[in-house]
Amino acid sequence: MHFDQPLSLESGGVLAGYDIVYETYGTLNAERSNAILVCHALSGSHHAAGYHHADDRKPGWWENMIGPGKVLDSDRFFIVSSNNLGGCYGTTGPATINPDSGRPFGPDFPLLTVRDWVHSQARLADRLGIGTWLAVVGGSLGGMQGLQWAIEYPERVRHVAAIAAAPKLTAQNIAFNEVARQAIRSDPDFHDGRYHDHGTEPRGGLRLARMLGHITYLSDDIMAEKFGRDLREDRISFDFGVEFQVESYLRHQGDSFVGSFDANTYLLMTKVLDYFDPAAATGGDLSAAFRPAMADFMLMSFTSDWRFAPERSREIVKALHDNDLDVSYAEIESSQGHDAFLLQIPQYVDVFSAYVERMEREI
Amino acid sequence: MHFDQPLSLESGGVLAGYDIVYETYGTLNAERSNAILVCHALSGSHHAAGYHHADDRKPGWWENMIGPGKVLDSDRFFIVSSNNLGGCYGTTGPATINPDSGRPFGPDFPLLTVRDWVHSQARLADRLGIGTWLAVVGGSLGGMQGLQWAIEYPERVRHVAAIAAAPKLTAQNIAFNEVARQAIRSDPDFHDGRYHDHGTEPRGGLRLARMLGHITYLSDDIMAEKFGRDLREDRISFDFGVEFQVESYLRHQGDSFVGSFDANTYLLMTKVLDYFDPAAATGGDLSAAFRPAMADFMLMSFTSDWRFAPERSREIVKALHDNDLDVSYAEIESSQGHDAFLLQIPQYVDVFSAYVERMEREI
Repeated sequence: MHFDQPLSLESGGVLAGYDIVYETYGTLNAERSNAILVCHALSGSHHAAGYHHADDRKPGWWENMIGPGKVLDSDRFFIVSSNNLGGCYGTTGPATINPDSGRPFGPDFPLLTVRDWVHSQARLADRLGIGTWLAVVGGSLGGMQGLQWAIEYPERVRHVAAIAAAPKLTAQNIAFNEVARQAIRSDPDFHDGRYHDHGTEPRGGLRLARMLGHITYLSDDIMAEKFGRDLREDRISFDFGVEFQVESYLRHQGDSFVGSFDANTYLLMTKVLDYFDPAAATGGDLSAAFRPAMADFMLMSFTSDWRFAPERSREIVKALHDNDLDVSYAEIESSQGHDAFLLQIPQYVDVFSAYVERMEREI
Repeated sequence: MHFDQPLSLESGGVLAGYDIVYETYGTLNAERSNAILVCHALSGSHHAAGYHHADDRKPGWWENMIGPGKVLDSDRFFIVSSNNLGGCYGTTGPATINPDSGRPFGPDFPLLTVRDWVHSQARLADRLGIGTWLAVVGGSLGGMQGLQWAIEYPERVRHVAAIAAAPKLTAQNIAFNEVARQAIRSDPDFHDGRYHDHGTEPRGGLRLARMLGHITYLSDDIMAEKFGRDLREDRISFDFGVEFQVESYLRHQGDSFVGSFDANTYLLMTKVLDYFDPAAATGGDLSAAFRPAMADFMLMSFTSDWRFAPERSREIVKALHDNDLDVSYAEIESSQGHDAFLLQIPQYVDVFSAYVERMEREI
């Protein structure tokens, strides 16, 4: 969907016009009361469920949750999933051709915030004829968008489900993002972000960033369980090839990301994460930040998630309670780390389902 | 000290001859019973205490512990600290000129193990006239050398103090090492390790490796305490310069490491860590691995150390107890993460001192 009206950004910049790519699953009911916005995380896209082609190797990223008969049931709800501004899956972003120059925006694409995204999503809602979302739902950075929706547009969202989210990044979170950014930016093929003009790509840097990301998505325990100290061959080879299985896993994750994701988008997404801090507008007081909110909330976290640990969700829960909001919170037992929010964990599915049933009764 | 006699390595290779650089503090007593070997960690050196020049910016890496009147009191003990084989501070390593080619060994330098190091340290002890160490002492990878000493040369070590160590690396530990290695090896200036021949150095890769390392040396809490989300300027600048203080810290750590450390040595040291697993020789049974040991042990760990967590030290303690060995164990309350072993934390100093007093009474 193309948007002509300029979008003012939190950075002070303006996006003159832009496209947003989105998918929908299910049908908007006559009352327009069954619409759910699904927000994606760092490297996600609008393609949240189903297959596009018979030969697709993988379905959308939240296939476990979205579809007929699933938690986010496309037989009952109208589910909208858009690729966020700055993305690289069709929505206007750094890899898009800048109409002013005829070349990709690259580093000229403005840095964004979760608030900017929510504003752009609100316009998408307008165009789709959705006055109020039944729910805004997402995991990780996706959950942060849900929280921001409740603050920005209190009357336009009835429920927020924020899973494995955090009220803001810690210094350690920012540190990991910074190493990922430095990996990309110090790659000689980065060319200050104008790699498209040079016919190159900072492949090595993006690969490292992704490898590092994957360490933080998994828990220590699940890594031990999946790989332990298992060797690829029977014995140590005393060289720098793949010796341990975990090395093979990381290299594979890095290699398969390169070529499918734009490095400037990766940089931008990590900055959006770093900048997220709704309490900054209220002098660091998270409870005050949520004062405008009117939605009901469901927060979920996973015991082994050390990227956005349960403690971080509990901070949000407390701030919501301080505003006498209706909050459900579940800490899901899982060894899967941050990645758990993408998986089909029975307790997680049960709790999520129960909440969605309740939402539906209120339609 | 030069060694002519070839050293057979665990990899099957042989080191024809080599130099070991070492420092000593204090005087060996007439009975030769007061010698303590201090072993360094990943990026350490033989320079463990004191200053070499009046204009040195920093003292040796364990200045907090070694010196007159300190825990490892150079007025009472003869303390030996060597740079391990493969190092880059004077001991023979990848940056040393290979006499066969007249050029630096680079990638031709053999990969080593903690066992190889212990063998080379035993030869150093022979040459220094030290039949039995009063103690072998170290933190992190240094502690692992102490443990290996107790297994390899049970009659040559009376005490082992292993601080912030682990019986072997976890998959997550190996994963971090692997990302660091890939950062170095994918740097175009790496030239398959022959960067000396090209007059280059994989500076970008080594810088990333060090930045990443520093994240794992600090705890989440101490990072929050030191940097939080503090901005370098008053406000977010919406660019890729330093925005948060933690970014500044990491970049500084990375930059100051480059130029002072050899990248091939870094690769080698991470492999030594990955390979360490004394229980591999006994079918995974750590208790069986320690069966030869006769030393008394002191283990210490730090509550916020997530690189080598207290649980890992407790695994060692259990295995030592299974062999009816004399073991002291202290878990030190600290928010400083793995780095704590380098710091002057009162409880740590007290416990360490008390153990050293006891050692001395037994001389």
